[in-house]
Parts: sequence; structure tokens; C-alpha cells
Amino acid sequence: MPKIVDHAARRDEIARAACRVVARRGLDGLTLRDVAAEAGFANGALKPYFPTKTELARATYTYVFEQTNRRIDRSVAGAHGLVALERFAREVLPLDAERLDEARVVLPFWQLALHEPGLAEINDGAMLTWRGRMRSWMREGMEAGEVRPELDVASAVESLLNFLLGAQGAAVLDTSFNSVEDLERQLQVQLGHLRPRARPGP
Amino acid sequence: MPKIVDHAARRDEIARAACRVVARRGLDGLTLRDVAAEAGFANGALKPYFPTKTELARATYTYVFEQTNRRIDRSVAGAHGLVALERFAREVLPLDAERLDEARVVLPFWQLALHEPGLAEINDGAMLTWRGRMRSWMREGMEAGEVRPELDVASAVESLLNFLLGAQGAAVLDTSFNSVEDLERQLQVQLGHLRPRARPGP
Repeated sequence: MPKIVDHAARRDEIARAACRVVARRGLDGLTLRDVAAEAGFANGALKPYFPTKTELARATYTYVFEQTNRRIDRSVAGAHGLVALERFAREVLPLDAERLDEARVVLPFWQLALHEPGLAEINDGAMLTWRGRMRSWMREGMEAGEVRPELDVASAVESLLNFLLGAQGAAVLDTSFNSVEDLERQLQVQLGHLRPRARPGP
Repeated sequence: MPKIVDHAARRDEIARAACRVVARRGLDGLTLRDVAAEAGFANGALKPYFPTKTELARATYTYVFEQTNRRIDRSVAGAHGLVALERFAREVLPLDAERLDEARVVLPFWQLALHEPGLAEINDGAMLTWRGRMRSWMREGMEAGEVRPELDVASAVESLLNFLLGAQGAAVLDTSFNSVEDLERQLQVQLGHLRPRARPGP
């Protein structure tokens, strides 16, 4: 019986190994050879899937983004408004080892995307999906009275999104001031900003 | 008479040229040869100043950070509290071509610093200076009643700083939603968050 290889699963497996290599050694340290070793494959086994480093880098980022989105989907299922927005934010913020590794992949990806239109498109698509969902939750929050009605939804979303992206970078780069506890407090500042403040008592 | 060379000025000149090269072509595109051409020097003229690409990259980032700080110093001179904080933020946000070029240098620097302790130190030092000044302005703002007294200064500063860093990245990477006008609006959202809200009328 011929051996059946699930090519989609193998691509995922390679991307997952590449993610670990990039997290440890940076994008400059990403070689097909190291990823093959990390995934436990023979040296030439990656070539049919990813002929070049750029294609592997692209698949690695796509994989990271899909992983994050899978977690987001599970986390926001059934939630609305500000609750959903907070759960989303907590999946993007590097609050555990898995998300820190993701941030370590995203950071080098950004600089690569600056000069590779194909990679920039992946990032644009990812951000479009995120901001679309964030806008819906922000509007839901407004309708439910959880979010200040005078806020401009688009600007509030972009400013929160840029906070999350900056925090992703800072959590791996400027660690002394961006521990898990620090990031939790920063998120509460950002979310607290959105809530209507309690009226002064009578 | 022997030719007098101002070595500090020449180093600055080279770093300025390197900044333009990185902004255009990315850190991977940074070569001593290209920077020499950009600065109008002979091919070997850079070696005595920057024997390696890493040293040139380090000098380029230090130069960008010094440039930003020079602008910040001019801009905040005589200002206090929330006014100073806003002026500072406007020098970090990529609101013109010069600051966009700076963001294009900072982004690749971040990912390089992830795996080079020497570069991470430069970034840590830069961020320490910034957060120290931001904290002072935030406290001044509180004392003057411009900033909500119940905010935790450290967390409010870090969350604003991470917003600024994320916006630096987004302004060069995700340009459709981070034009100068968009960034201005996002900054007003962040600063508006800090201000005490008007009490509802009688």
C-alpha cells in the first residue's frame, strides 16, 4: 500500500518548526536545514514544500496568524462588545510562552514585509480582518452602553490596535517594563479609557 | 597645512547616509559600499569609522534616536504636563517624511536588537530616557488637573508608549489606515483618554 502523506499537515508541521527556529534565532537564523532538523525531517524534505526561504518565511507568518486567529475564535465564541474586545486583545498580547514566540516571529516579519510587497499583503489582510472584528465589537459595546458613545469607532479601534502591536514588540524587546503583569495593567488602562466613567455621586 | 577632519561630524554624516539607505532598502540592503556612495565618499573611507555592518547599524540607530531627541528637546522646551506629553508624542509619531524615515530605521532595528544584546541595550537606554520624561509630564499633568488623578502613572505611560511604538510600525507597514491624519486622530483618542471628562451639566 502506498504511503499516504497529508501534505497540508506536513506544511503546518514545517511552519510550526520554522516558528520555533525564528523565535529562538531570528529570521536571519532561519535556514531550511535547521527547520528540517527541528521538524525531524531529512535535509532535502522541505524543498518540495518551500523552495525558498522567503516562501518558508511567508508560510511561517501565515501559520502564526492562523494560530492566533484560532485562539481568538475559541476565546470570543459567544462573547460580544467590550468582553469580546478584551478577549481578543488578550490573545494578541504576549501573555504566555506561546504568544511570546508568536511576537518573536511577528517582529522580524514586519521588517521583512517593509520591503517585500507579497509579505506586506499578508499583513494587510491580517490587519483588515482584525480591525473589522474590532469595529463590530466596539459598536456592540457602544450600543450596550459599555463604550463611551462619543468615541470615533475607527480611530478608537486603530489606536487600540497600534497599542497591541507596540506591546507585542515591547514584550520581547523591552522586557523589564512589559512583563505579563505589566501588559495586563496596560490593557486595563486602554480598556478603562473606553468605558463611560462613573458619574460623580449625588 | 594638514587637512583637519572632524571625525565626529564625519561619523554623523555617514550615519545620516546609512539612515537613508536603510529607509529605502531595509537593513538587509545596508552595505558599506552603498552608504559610501550615498555619502559621496570613496569605497574604503567608511572602514576606519565602522569596520562592520553591525557597528554601522548601531551608529545608524543611535543617530536616529539622537535626531528624534533633539527634535523632542526643541519641541518641549518650556512646556509642561499634558502639553509637553503631546509635543513629545508628535515627535515620535511619523507625521512627516523625516519621521517616516526614522520609523523605517527603527522597525528593522527592533528585530536586529532581538538577537543582539548590544543593540538591545541601546534600545533599553533610549526607552528608559523616554519613559522617565513621560512619567514626569504625566505627574505634572495630574498635579495641574489635566490628567485623571486615578490613573496609575507607570501603566498609563507604558500603554501610551506602546501605542506610539505600534503606530511607528503601522505608519510604514499598514499605511492605508495610518496616514498622518489617522495618526493625529489616534493620538487625540489616546490623549483624550487621559483627560478628566467634563462633568455632566446641571
